[in-house]
Amino acid sequence: MRIAVDAMGGDFAPSAIVEGSVRAARELGHVKKIILVGREDAVRGELAKHGPTPGSIEIRHCTEVVEMGESPATAVRRKRDSSINRAIDLVKDGEADAIFSAGSTGAQVAASQLKLRTLEGVDRPAIATVFPSPTTPFVLLDAGANTDCTPVMLAQFAAMGMVYSREILKVGNPRIGLMSIGEEDAKGNAATKETFGLLEKSGLNFAGNIEGHDLFEGEIDVVVCDGFVGNVVLKTSESVAHAIGVWLKREFKANPLRLFGALCLKGAFKSLKDKLDPSQYGGAPLLGVNGVSIIGHGSSNATAVFNGIRTSAEAVSHDVNHHIVDAIKKLAPPVASGAL
Amino acid sequence: MRIAVDAMGGDFAPSAIVEGSVRAARELGHVKKIILVGREDAVRGELAKHGPTPGSIEIRHCTEVVEMGESPATAVRRKRDSSINRAIDLVKDGEADAIFSAGSTGAQVAASQLKLRTLEGVDRPAIATVFPSPTTPFVLLDAGANTDCTPVMLAQFAAMGMVYSREILKVGNPRIGLMSIGEEDAKGNAATKETFGLLEKSGLNFAGNIEGHDLFEGEIDVVVCDGFVGNVVLKTSESVAHAIGVWLKREFKANPLRLFGALCLKGAFKSLKDKLDPSQYGGAPLLGVNGVSIIGHGSSNATAVFNGIRTSAEAVSHDVNHHIVDAIKKLAPPVASGAL
Repeated sequence: MRIAVDAMGGDFAPSAIVEGSVRAARELGHVKKIILVGREDAVRGELAKHGPTPGSIEIRHCTEVVEMGESPATAVRRKRDSSINRAIDLVKDGEADAIFSAGSTGAQVAASQLKLRTLEGVDRPAIATVFPSPTTPFVLLDAGANTDCTPVMLAQFAAMGMVYSREILKVGNPRIGLMSIGEEDAKGNAATKETFGLLEKSGLNFAGNIEGHDLFEGEIDVVVCDGFVGNVVLKTSESVAHAIGVWLKREFKANPLRLFGALCLKGAFKSLKDKLDPSQYGGAPLLGVNGVSIIGHGSSNATAVFNGIRTSAEAVSHDVNHHIVDAIKKLAPPVASGAL
Repeated sequence: MRIAVDAMGGDFAPSAIVEGSVRAARELGHVKKIILVGREDAVRGELAKHGPTPGSIEIRHCTEVVEMGESPATAVRRKRDSSINRAIDLVKDGEADAIFSAGSTGAQVAASQLKLRTLEGVDRPAIATVFPSPTTPFVLLDAGANTDCTPVMLAQFAAMGMVYSREILKVGNPRIGLMSIGEEDAKGNAATKETFGLLEKSGLNFAGNIEGHDLFEGEIDVVVCDGFVGNVVLKTSESVAHAIGVWLKREFKANPLRLFGALCLKGAFKSLKDKLDPSQYGGAPLLGVNGVSIIGHGSSNATAVFNGIRTSAEAVSHDVNHHIVDAIKKLAPPVASGAL
């Protein structure tokens, strides 16, 4: 198992990336090689801070970095020697089994699509994000790779999400929900109404439309939506959780009794905060490309990078892609062929 | 000031509707008439539970009710004698100044559009929902009236939201944010990218794209999106808040110290719960129709109905519609004319 890591991508690169990689090299025995792709002097400087460098760590020098503000497609084409391009090249050339990056999501999606291509039968890859929940965690896709989606794309996302839920989250017969704004099949926008029909005939365990209200109720294992809606759901959820934290803190400061109460509950808040902490999840896979490409949060700290490398290794060992090709083949003809 | 109330609409109709209306009749001196539209015997039976009926309450009998599961457009056309149709007729015929309903949102939108028509220059009405926030509340539109929107419609929503923010929420020069998935103008889906250009030239105080992350940060007063995305944001927000409550309760039960701490914080949690309680806001206006149509939450209790009638009266007295016509006229030509 060999993981290519974009050492230059993310708000805290290269320091957090290198630190997380060193920890992964020390703790994850099944990861035989971690290839840090980035400016050699910068990476070496960071490595020096963490004692003797584990033998499984290699450096691959490159000269460029895609910045967060750059247009992804352009950057990927122009900055040929960027860390994200070079890291994905390693997967393409068979030198690595997976790539992890906390850099520009757009650049990683564009480079993965361009270099790795999509799996047989898959029109577009989708970002699959696992949401924590007080009931059971669920996977939502697409979380941002495709802003405008056709019904066929959405139906394929359902199949890919089903595979991820079954193989990685170990859900027996994942229930698929189509994100919409009403439960009846007549509710939704033009794309979801047509997708509803495709999913009904897909052979998947389709539970119908779901609304925002249903997300955390434990009734659905896979939530399907376009990348615009998915990204809005993801960021709105984080934002609401943050706002509630701000509000509660303000309430707690209202009087000494409350301050005391808050002190008694410190452990409870810490425990919930950990559950909601994206760094525990370690990245979202870009499903549907011919290779394993794991997208980390831009704000990834060393723990998130460690978990991202762990997730990358897990995705490789479960051979998710093989199962995706199978699942797409089993879909009813118009979806499988992408003919619509 | 005369308010027509759909006595049969909502999960707790007619009891909660009648109770809230009686309270409004007693407490809101400027509301001269409240016309309860519904099955006379049912409404009379509920009224009898609340002592002497205030003189400002009238009953208007009708024989039908639009149920929540029905197709809105069909129901509105077929059930001519439904409470929502008859209540809106009162506004259309000048017998009432505003209508409040907690029934089917789709039916209310369809009947309002059909009977009241849109204001001069407005292509489609939009539901404006006020979101509470630890910083400043903001208004989001469209929260669900139009699932598929053109850039011109979105730009008009911006103008209508600006008016609502300025006239009702008393914000000086409301900052408009376009809901998207990245701050740069090149980010978003096909519709938001084109809308960005229109808003830049609109003469409105356009602050650019915003993401879910920015919602509660107090930087934006008006959030513009299509009704599909808006409805997802609204319901996801409610859902995340609910899930956090469930999680926290579970954490609090972990040991006696925590239970004790939670007891000390009872007031804090109650205070936040009240702030997030939709019944405090009393309904969302359908902006852009030629009349005042206020949409209540399906789960409206008597307090929500009372606040809904209060909101209805407020919208009438601020003459929001007059300002909307003005604001739409001031938009740059392609948006104002609806020519795109």
